[in-house]
Amino acid sequence: MGHTGADPLIYLDYNATAPVRPEALAATTKALTAVGNASSVHAAGRDAALAVDQARERVAALLACSPNELIFTSGATEANNLALRSAATPGQSLVISAVEHPAVTEAAVAVADAVGSTVHTIGVHRDGTLRLDELEEALATSPALVSIMAANNETGVLSDLDLVVKIAHEAGALVHSDATQLVGRLPIDLRRLQLDLLSMSGHKFGAPQGVGALFARRGTVPAIRPLAHGGGHERGRRPGTLNVPGIVGLGAAAEAAARCLDQEASRIRLLRDRFETAVMTALPGTRRNGHPDRRLPGVSSLTFDGLPADAMLAAMPAIAASEGSACAAGAMEPSRVLLAMGLSRDEAECAIRFSLGYATTADDIDSAIRHVIDAERRVHAALYPNTTTSASGTAQGQEGPRRHDA
Amino acid sequence: MGHTGADPLIYLDYNATAPVRPEALAATTKALTAVGNASSVHAAGRDAALAVDQARERVAALLACSPNELIFTSGATEANNLALRSAATPGQSLVISAVEHPAVTEAAVAVADAVGSTVHTIGVHRDGTLRLDELEEALATSPALVSIMAANNETGVLSDLDLVVKIAHEAGALVHSDATQLVGRLPIDLRRLQLDLLSMSGHKFGAPQGVGALFARRGTVPAIRPLAHGGGHERGRRPGTLNVPGIVGLGAAAEAAARCLDQEASRIRLLRDRFETAVMTALPGTRRNGHPDRRLPGVSSLTFDGLPADAMLAAMPAIAASEGSACAAGAMEPSRVLLAMGLSRDEAECAIRFSLGYATTADDIDSAIRHVIDAERRVHAALYPNTTTSASGTAQGQEGPRRHDA
Repeated sequence: MGHTGADPLIYLDYNATAPVRPEALAATTKALTAVGNASSVHAAGRDAALAVDQARERVAALLACSPNELIFTSGATEANNLALRSAATPGQSLVISAVEHPAVTEAAVAVADAVGSTVHTIGVHRDGTLRLDELEEALATSPALVSIMAANNETGVLSDLDLVVKIAHEAGALVHSDATQLVGRLPIDLRRLQLDLLSMSGHKFGAPQGVGALFARRGTVPAIRPLAHGGGHERGRRPGTLNVPGIVGLGAAAEAAARCLDQEASRIRLLRDRFETAVMTALPGTRRNGHPDRRLPGVSSLTFDGLPADAMLAAMPAIAASEGSACAAGAMEPSRVLLAMGLSRDEAECAIRFSLGYATTADDIDSAIRHVIDAERRVHAALYPNTTTSASGTAQGQEGPRRHDA
Repeated sequence: MGHTGADPLIYLDYNATAPVRPEALAATTKALTAVGNASSVHAAGRDAALAVDQARERVAALLACSPNELIFTSGATEANNLALRSAATPGQSLVISAVEHPAVTEAAVAVADAVGSTVHTIGVHRDGTLRLDELEEALATSPALVSIMAANNETGVLSDLDLVVKIAHEAGALVHSDATQLVGRLPIDLRRLQLDLLSMSGHKFGAPQGVGALFARRGTVPAIRPLAHGGGHERGRRPGTLNVPGIVGLGAAAEAAARCLDQEASRIRLLRDRFETAVMTALPGTRRNGHPDRRLPGVSSLTFDGLPADAMLAAMPAIAASEGSACAAGAMEPSRVLLAMGLSRDEAECAIRFSLGYATTADDIDSAIRHVIDAERRVHAALYPNTTTSASGTAQGQEGPRRHDA
């Protein structure tokens, strides 16, 4: 299964992690070669603290919030847990969607258990968009918090956060969004979008792994309840020596992403559409998962009819893509997200997520198209030896095995 | 107060944070220029996972434990919180010392509150060593956990962990040690030293900031109770995308530190002793805090009689040293550690921690000696204008102010 060929790996797994942007690499490397604890008062410490201040301003600029509304964390998982823990209220439910990341679903259950509350999960339509009728019903129970992801990690489907915020606030609930997949890929303006809490991670848009942030709107969110206790870092809300190299990398990635967000999104959307059009034209049995327009520009979730994702991925080792999310990849369970959208287990197990990003090139996409079509033909031939492949025309005699048992 | 001179900063604040070792810088930079989520199953993900495996083996080799007894965290604060949370038992107390880092003292209070338990704090002698009589008394109450730091962050004083483990285990308690200041500076052998839990941080010995680990001995520690919830990373004990660049940097720093631990410690001890001898000979009013021998080789906590630390540090901007710990440096409270050792507030406010490390040179120390003696003379002259300085001979007419009010 290993990728041992001479071709370089074509990386189409930006929703798992993105390559570090040159600007972030430079900033992080510079910080790694300096020395300084951002809490120290001597010159080295002050330099580190100033670098953190600048990074905080850059992230704030990307989100259009105030720098002091940001708490640096080790990533979005920590930020999500911190948000839910801080907003939970005994006796008032937490409302989440069925397609949230485990860092929200698992955290919600744990937080609800801890404070004596419940979790109310609302469903999604077949296209991955939120069941607003179920949200309205849930809001009638006066929940403490509504937590809805900004963009889905598996399908890229975007939530209508404006609407969620409007109706949740009318019902007196706070609103949190896990915006891990949106930040740095599409514009967001927290002056206009009145989210109370927002989680983000750096490594999805070109910062190093191991750093993220929680936005907590000044004046609307009750006191932050830290996950851990220790020194008074981040104004008592997140103890531990600041990860200065990671934080300055996050700031540099935010600054780089903000500089050309619209152009980058347009370029990536064109590449993604070219990929989908070519693959779906050549392989008519292929179906796209998620709303065709209300999606992140870089995500393409495709179901290859009757061809298990693990077999397909094994047949194109030059492509880095994934079945479901990376976090669950070890488990080999069918995607919880796709099942929530109403796909069958078989359909979900035949889905592959391709995710493009800032460094994806047209050549990458042209190669990827060839690799995918070739893999489909070979897997199809191996699993359905007595039929023609869908790529070579009309599929015939689909009495072969629907999936293998690997 | 800024360090604006032409001289390079002489960095003597390794207990706050150490410069990144060249081996760690190389490993981290290499990881930053690769791409891969350690949970992904494609080639890029597998490469990241292999790099994490190697780093885990290197850290395990430094500690002489099994790789699967290590959980990577964002640092020692998180590891300490995770350890205390996992070991806490309703109705059974947590025993800590009065000189623990806030990441233990604050975590112990929070954890005890959460599970319905209490915190029992035992004192230290004037030399910073543990009051074993008080430990024995505390053990008579059958605590769930004893948490004693391996080496103090402000004085470097070492705990007799062999003895602590022996008597605590006889009393049926688990033993945790915050070994943040010891790991990578002195040898530790967890095959011999039967600690149940140990916390460490990378950035104190030359790994990047933002990464650390918890050791949890297999078979003796009850289930780890995660601080946050999400994906199944680190076998369900610590969710969140692994910080691959930080982790490989930690592994490389561990490998580099392990390679020459004894020689490095001897070299640093000689430099530290040269520094102390020169300063204390030139400035007879200077007193050393902490046990003279049972200390980390690189730490020198000195009280400059009647000269507030902030005034002294301001008078030697070319030296990066600290009053108390960096974590509390913003607060400007006198050191809790030194007060627990029986120093007066005035004495504690006149103490400076100098901490040396792997990259400290003899030239650094010779320069530091000159800067410290010069600073002492100038601060003394400013605060006690009608006396000769202690550096120039016998101090006279000590009727001047004992401390200034800045």
